[in-house]
Amino acid sequence: MPEFRKDPIIKRWVIIATERAKRPHDFARTKVEEVREGFCPFDYGNEHTTPPEIFAFRPADTEPNTPGWWVRVVPNKFPAVDPNAPLRKYGRGMYDAAMGFGYHDVVVETPDHNSHLAVMDYKNVEEVIWAYKIRYEQLMKDERIKYILIFKNHGRDAGASLSHPHSQIIALPIMPKRVQEELDGSKEYYEYKERCPFCDIIDEEKRERERIVEENDHFIALEPFAARFPFETWILPKRHMNSFHLISEDEVGSLAKILKNVLYRIYAALDNPPYNLLIHTAPTSLEGKDYYHWHIEIFPRLTKVAGFEWGTGFYINTVPPEDAARYLREVSLEQV
Amino acid sequence: MPEFRKDPIIKRWVIIATERAKRPHDFARTKVEEVREGFCPFDYGNEHTTPPEIFAFRPADTEPNTPGWWVRVVPNKFPAVDPNAPLRKYGRGMYDAAMGFGYHDVVVETPDHNSHLAVMDYKNVEEVIWAYKIRYEQLMKDERIKYILIFKNHGRDAGASLSHPHSQIIALPIMPKRVQEELDGSKEYYEYKERCPFCDIIDEEKRERERIVEENDHFIALEPFAARFPFETWILPKRHMNSFHLISEDEVGSLAKILKNVLYRIYAALDNPPYNLLIHTAPTSLEGKDYYHWHIEIFPRLTKVAGFEWGTGFYINTVPPEDAARYLREVSLEQV
Repeated sequence: MPEFRKDPIIKRWVIIATERAKRPHDFARTKVEEVREGFCPFDYGNEHTTPPEIFAFRPADTEPNTPGWWVRVVPNKFPAVDPNAPLRKYGRGMYDAAMGFGYHDVVVETPDHNSHLAVMDYKNVEEVIWAYKIRYEQLMKDERIKYILIFKNHGRDAGASLSHPHSQIIALPIMPKRVQEELDGSKEYYEYKERCPFCDIIDEEKRERERIVEENDHFIALEPFAARFPFETWILPKRHMNSFHLISEDEVGSLAKILKNVLYRIYAALDNPPYNLLIHTAPTSLEGKDYYHWHIEIFPRLTKVAGFEWGTGFYINTVPPEDAARYLREVSLEQV
Repeated sequence: MPEFRKDPIIKRWVIIATERAKRPHDFARTKVEEVREGFCPFDYGNEHTTPPEIFAFRPADTEPNTPGWWVRVVPNKFPAVDPNAPLRKYGRGMYDAAMGFGYHDVVVETPDHNSHLAVMDYKNVEEVIWAYKIRYEQLMKDERIKYILIFKNHGRDAGASLSHPHSQIIALPIMPKRVQEELDGSKEYYEYKERCPFCDIIDEEKRERERIVEENDHFIALEPFAARFPFETWILPKRHMNSFHLISEDEVGSLAKILKNVLYRIYAALDNPPYNLLIHTAPTSLEGKDYYHWHIEIFPRLTKVAGFEWGTGFYINTVPPEDAARYLREVSLEQV
């Protein structure tokens, strides 16, 4: 019997289709192939083909925009928004529009073209998180920016146009609808319960233990109760904090461990599937101090989003999150 | 310079990336191939392999579940929801869930395995619309049903698991979030302007003429101002009505013409791309009589929805709708 489940924050219903439940190997054909493109702007020696670097982690005796770096942050060469656009809204007939102001950066995660977060050293993943945090804090200083999204597309089917491991950071002058919904939902829960809904989720999941993938000192990884997608995985900090940039040095180390492990589990269980990774964080106004709780959402792209999802906002998930959590827990970390 | 544009109803912002503007042939690699699977449950002679038909348009001297039909409506063999499930909501710890009650039907649009709406006779398309309307009215009678979605996935990349032309109808006991948002947005506009926002859009587009693809007596097809996707196309009835099932006999004929023409234009301009087609209609309560206006949304699946879209609810559209409308208008209908 299928089951409707409701996300406690967004109030999005999903259908868990237990009768058509799938196992990890049912999805194996989506594998991300390690293809070597002819030319890669993110390889050593090609630094001049990207816009000049914003910063990089590199030995003190190397010049900017030369090899030697281990993480490199550059403006996107084909940005969706433009830092030189004026901040201006205007009407067009009955419609509303605005100039496309914003920042769109790329974090090149490693010089190694064929590596990726799931198989990197913990230390390298930690450095990537530091790059996120530093760039986030720089962008926060621009008062025109309302929201900063850090995200990653792994594999062509997840929307990546280059295979060299990289993440993206987009800073926007308009509050995204999706984020506002999450803030509003959290606030409504907080007003009713006087508790942060994400802290409640962590407590509930620790009691039930059915959907936990892994936990360490500072973070917990779990399959959400109303997962939209097979193997959708969230990583939440145990300490209540609304904005990603508030993460402490200890927490960065702990996050690197759980993030790499979770991505490795997904990589091993599902044979390197394409995935999207998103950091959900508070707006730059730091709204939601009491009720919002930053976290990471990862979803392997194993199924197609089709007419039903577009038309309703419901999702049909063919892997119950309890099963997905078990499959991911069973992955051995010995080779990590 | 990219431009932010806001959907006047949903208030969803999109980024029209004019500098990366693409032309139809840039998308040609997404073509839906006409593959002949070994066995097709929707072909003549295989009627016994689907659940027994709900109804079919067939000669009076043929038996149900035998060949001879031209449109056939059957329950989905692998339904996402189950008409035999009890209508029951319950708590699971802090979470909310419900039994998966609902209807999930398939409309087999033609016995011709390799045909599809874009290349069918107008008469056949008209019959498909009649099947939608009849089944819609049947399902409305079940008082447990709050919303009925009619949709179509064309091609594997749009989520179709069978290539034989078919649509789906899902009837749900829970009001979908996506639909509620559209109703709420329309209502808010109506309260402010005292006019239906969709009627306003039709007026505005007829004045500007930049985004119209085609119009006839009863319908208008256009690219919306804040199109999320390249070549996203809406078809709206000119007469204000909130629910699809209120369509008159004349309007069915007029809709068949514009729907087939629009799908043919997309087929010809983009070389048979995968697409999703959705009928946006009022809930079965018929809420929104004054402010809601049913319509069809079609989006070719030419680009991947990636981290940015998932994280923000913003979309990046690389084809300005004005360009898309022009490309679609330029398609000759001589061979139709």
